[in-house]
Amino acid sequence: MNYLHLLDYAGVAVFAATGALAASRLRLDIVGFIFFAAITGVGGGTLRDLLLGKLPVFWIKQPLFIGICVIIAVLVFFTAHLVESRYRLLLWLDAIGMAAYCVMGAMIGLEYGISPYAAIVTGISTATFGGIFRDVISGEKSVLLSDEIYISAALLGATSFVFLFSMGVPQIVAVFVGVLLAFGLRAAALLFGWTTPRYKPRQGRKIK
Amino acid sequence: MNYLHLLDYAGVAVFAATGALAASRLRLDIVGFIFFAAITGVGGGTLRDLLLGKLPVFWIKQPLFIGICVIIAVLVFFTAHLVESRYRLLLWLDAIGMAAYCVMGAMIGLEYGISPYAAIVTGISTATFGGIFRDVISGEKSVLLSDEIYISAALLGATSFVFLFSMGVPQIVAVFVGVLLAFGLRAAALLFGWTTPRYKPRQGRKIK
Amino acid sequence: MNYLHLLDYAGVAVFAATGALAASRLRLDIVGFIFFAAITGVGGGTLRDLLLGKLPVFWIKQPLFIGICVIIAVLVFFTAHLVESRYRLLLWLDAIGMAAYCVMGAMIGLEYGISPYAAIVTGISTATFGGIFRDVISGEKSVLLSDEIYISAALLGATSFVFLFSMGVPQIVAVFVGVLLAFGLRAAALLFGWTTPRYKPRQGRKIK
Repeated sequence: MNYLHLLDYAGVAVFAATGALAASRLRLDIVGFIFFAAITGVGGGTLRDLLLGKLPVFWIKQPLFIGICVIIAVLVFFTAHLVESRYRLLLWLDAIGMAAYCVMGAMIGLEYGISPYAAIVTGISTATFGGIFRDVISGEKSVLLSDEIYISAALLGATSFVFLFSMGVPQIVAVFVGVLLAFGLRAAALLFGWTTPRYKPRQGRKIK
Repeated sequence: MNYLHLLDYAGVAVFAATGALAASRLRLDIVGFIFFAAITGVGGGTLRDLLLGKLPVFWIKQPLFIGICVIIAVLVFFTAHLVESRYRLLLWLDAIGMAAYCVMGAMIGLEYGISPYAAIVTGISTATFGGIFRDVISGEKSVLLSDEIYISAALLGATSFVFLFSMGVPQIVAVFVGVLLAFGLRAAALLFGWTTPRYKPRQGRKIK
Repeated sequence: MNYLHLLDYAGVAVFAATGALAASRLRLDIVGFIFFAAITGVGGGTLRDLLLGKLPVFWIKQPLFIGICVIIAVLVFFTAHLVESRYRLLLWLDAIGMAAYCVMGAMIGLEYGISPYAAIVTGISTATFGGIFRDVISGEKSVLLSDEIYISAALLGATSFVFLFSMGVPQIVAVFVGVLLAFGLRAAALLFGWTTPRYKPRQGRKIK
């Protein structure tokens, strides 16, 4: 076990926690908490493995990942009421998970031999789809559609990692920079309300 | 063809019927009925095959499964108005399908050589995602999020089957017990409103 | 590169445009436009490759497809306000994409050696799921659930292609007829409001 495994477990754990927090909003029972924790925790990585054809998916080979989701779900079930704002906590944990996964997804793609461009897309997919599954199944508006920068942060993290790693920068440095940039941008968006220029809807030409 | 094939066909058929019932609520045409019947009928098993890497998925190899969905969809299209409460019927058919699939999914996982823990998760995924696809695409609140026990029943069925089968109990007995426990628990939940202790939302600490 | 590649690129491009138009409705930033363009543009083909087990999925092998989505997203971001009715445009582009993909999906299935029946289902899946992903993630009512003929057009296109091709008709003719029939039926539905007989909800027998 090296630092990459830790990053992987951390990514699963924080995403699992956001799934459990979503379950708390839905007032599910403890099995529902586990269900949402697992879907969110391993959802992005499952999509990554499917896209790559790296099957069976990772959590079938290493059930420990599901175990982490179970533990986190139980913890959240009994402690979520202690938190002042569960949605705020969800957003911050989601930010950590996104930062860890956009780099992990890209790296596993590169190790699997896909092109740098495809690795960036795979990284972004890994980072975003756990949250998409959580939000779609729980019937909430997706965090990705909020005003603050989200997908751009995953794009920044995955791209900077892939660029640095392809330039020959040691893996640990490239990983560190990628995760930090992704998290930093998302954190700034959450703290300072950073947004990117958004599509400005104007009235169609019909209405004068 | 043995009893397992029958169980498999039965699971597809009842889930397909719930999909067609959802289509009736959306007032779709007959092709829409078939579409929803197929998504719900083979959706869970499709996810199972994807997760395992057992590709192409089962209904590509055996198109009879799609044929079953077509027949069921046509039947429901012409008979759904005879039913007193279509939602009630949907819930009961869904309960049968869930019970059949949580065991079938776990069994196919074990046959494919995955660990007992992963087989339980695969079983639960198989049992729940057909319904999730149906509910998400039709824009309804998912049956899984209702108050009555649902995912716990799939967990019970998959776990008891995997446990008994791993203990050396004959397959047919383990299957029978697993299906019966899953269906029994869900049926009790539907009949008597059984629920499990749910997350009790309290106000955050901010508001005093 | 032959006419089939052109059809494939065209299908990705028009679906990507519908994804970007959906992003414009959500007032996303340019990365959000790219995200939705990519999900919609390559979503159906991704599902097709997953179902067939043709992995890694096509856009990992040929990143040009993602490049097309990026270009289309940028174009739409800067020009969508010029359009009188963005939803109307979305529907027409979606019709082209659906027509191209129901045939492409079925053809790739046949080339992969699956049965004609399974190829039809694969074609319909390819044609419809890009739009389903777009609509589900953006939280809109799915285009497939609208009153006008949609899935039936994909069924017609896929079936006629598979039938003609299996009869020995030259591929280019079978493709042409399939695409034309699918697009023609959907276009007629959009222009003249064509619908198929829909399920007529009557009150359940309880209420007299």
